[in-house]
Parts: sequence; structure tokens; C-alpha cells
Amino acid sequence: MEFSSKLLERAVNEMSQLPGIGKRTALRLVLHLLKQPKEQSAMLADALQTMRNDIKFCKSCNNISDLELCEICSNPNRDETLVCVVEDIRDVMAIENTSSFKGLYHVLGGKISPMDGVGPHDLNIQSLVKKVEEGKIKELIFALSSTMEGDTTNFYIYKQIQKYNIFTSTIARGISVGDELEYADEITLGRSIVNRVPFESSLKS
Amino acid sequence: MEFSSKLLERAVNEMSQLPGIGKRTALRLVLHLLKQPKEQSAMLADALQTMRNDIKFCKSCNNISDLELCEICSNPNRDETLVCVVEDIRDVMAIENTSSFKGLYHVLGGKISPMDGVGPHDLNIQSLVKKVEEGKIKELIFALSSTMEGDTTNFYIYKQIQKYNIFTSTIARGISVGDELEYADEITLGRSIVNRVPFESSLKS
Repeated sequence: MEFSSKLLERAVNEMSQLPGIGKRTALRLVLHLLKQPKEQSAMLADALQTMRNDIKFCKSCNNISDLELCEICSNPNRDETLVCVVEDIRDVMAIENTSSFKGLYHVLGGKISPMDGVGPHDLNIQSLVKKVEEGKIKELIFALSSTMEGDTTNFYIYKQIQKYNIFTSTIARGISVGDELEYADEITLGRSIVNRVPFESSLKS
Repeated sequence: MEFSSKLLERAVNEMSQLPGIGKRTALRLVLHLLKQPKEQSAMLADALQTMRNDIKFCKSCNNISDLELCEICSNPNRDETLVCVVEDIRDVMAIENTSSFKGLYHVLGGKISPMDGVGPHDLNIQSLVKKVEEGKIKELIFALSSTMEGDTTNFYIYKQIQKYNIFTSTIARGISVGDELEYADEITLGRSIVNRVPFESSLKS
């Protein structure tokens, strides 16, 4: 792609560094900014830079926060003996939206994925093990995605904390609410039968 | 969508102002930036802001340029009597990629579209009419998209320059190279038959 301006080329190149944004999309976005008032670009640039420089991570759960301790961790109404292990803060937001979890979170910051060069030491696993070691946690819920990497990460953490003898669980896998059985994959359907729940308990939620 | 940080929320909101970027995508992009070194956000922010503040438009054709006169307009090998009218600089780039046009361009900056509040005076039509008036142009090629708005814009310009008696043409509409006839829409197929070209001339390109 040849550009008539170096400034344009640089903006497109930087923009296309973002995941899922190719050169063509980047050009479309940049040309859009050119049509808008200068303030919009200035605000976007400032928001991104301020965010990157000033953002803090909760020192307990590693969730993104403006304070030392995030709102969830500092909420006295939440059950600190119940900790849900998630990949990133999007999962925290998704679970919070369901309003069905009243414990705390622990954000790993990714999954163990040797293919992408992510090992256990790139994730916030040690701080989780330390929390378990301190004996505050009664139950750990694994809520990672159900992939090879997710399962590996679950298992790695499980091995690390096994000796502390706390209860560990994993979120239920099964047919989505509203889905038709005939279109479900075999593994999901199989698990949903093996891990069936009493009918009465399904009436409650 | 509830955010655990105001900084994050602001960055996501600004990002989601861009066309085709919703809140979820914006969050994904912003979280990606958080995982990258601070320099990447700084470079992106700087590239966008510098681009928006310092970019120039060629004073002749309105193409984006780092100079007063863009590379195409200042190239003595190009035919300045042949001018191709396009919507925006992406079209210039697309036509330049074909290497089949040796004239100059005139970038309108959009199409007449009352629905979006874009009238003739929001586009660079007056400067085009002035160029025609000065008598330098022999042929004007309309290369706008083949939509209601594109046709309206073509016709508006045509009416403005009709009295100067220059030759106007429009790019050929027809079946794309490599396309199968049976899948073509009727209007395109109809036009491609009405505007058929001598077989010998199709052998050349």
C-alpha cells in the first residue's frame, strides 16, 4: 500500500498494530479521524496515553482499578473465602454482569500457552498460590476458557495448591440456555449428561 | 458495560467513537495496548495527533500530502488535461495501484448525501468547477461509486460544468473480471451488454 503522506502512513502503521485491524481498516479509521474535528483525535490520543501510563492494577486480585485495591476486593459484603480464577478483566466484567457471584476474583492476565511464549511465570499465579497458602481461601473456582491452554493452566494451578487441601471447582460446561440439543458438539453434550443437576435446583435460577 | 476504572472507561469510550468499533472491540483493543510496552501506546497516540494536526491537503487536487502540491499533481509526466473525480483518497490509492491512469485526480471528500447532511457546499466541487473554467481540462472522468449518492453527485457536477463544453466520461460498469455471468445482477449485466466494447480492444489489457 503506497501512501501520499508519511504522516498518514505512520498513523496507519501504528493503528494496524492493533489486533484484528489490518492496513485497510486502519486507513478507514484514520481517514475518519481526519474528517472529524481535531479535538477528537486529541482526546483519543490523550485517553490512550493517560490510560496506559496511569492505570493501576488491584494489588490483591490484579483487576484494573484506579485505586490500590479494586472496588470488588474492598467491598466488605463480598465473600473473601471464595475466589474465582479468570483469564482477564473482560471475564470479571462478564461474570459481574450475571450478578450471581459474590466472592472475589483473581485475574491471571492470560493462559499458559507455550506456542505464544506465555509460561506460568508470565501470569499472576504465584500471588494466587500465596493467597491460598495464607489460608484465607476456602474454595477456588476455575473459570478459564475451555481450551487446551485453559485446561493446562487450571491443572498447573491445581498442582501448585493441591497440598493446601482447599476445595477447587470449575464452572459447569453444558448446553447453553436456549440452544437446541441436536446442534451441540458431542463433548459438551456428553459432559452435560455426566454432570447433570437435580431438576429441583434448575428451577431456582 | 461497567468498568472498574475511569481511565479504562474513557479510553474505551474514545476508541468506540471510531466507525465499526463497538464497545466490546474497543475494550479488546485497549486491553491489548495495556499488555504491550508503554511505548506502543505513546507512539500510536503521537502518530494520530501529529497526523491530525500537521497533515496537509494538496491545494490543487485535495489529496492528502506532506507538501503544498501532492506528488501526483507535481509530476510533470502526468497528463493535466485529464482529471479523474473521486470521492476520497482511498479511491486515488486504488486507481494508482492499477497503474492504468496517467492523468490527475480531484478528490471531492465525499458524496452529496442529504440523508447524512452532506450538501454540495461541503465538498470540493467549487474548486473543480474553477479548474474547468480555467480551460486546462479536456476530459473529466467520473469515478464515484455507483450508488444513488454517487449518481446525484455526478449529475450535480455535470450540470455545473456543462456550459464549458468539455468531454465527460464515467468509468465502465460491467461484470468483474473473473465473475460468473449467472451471479451478476440485472442492471450490471444489462449495462455491460449495452456498453460492450470491440473484442480486439479487450485483448490489449
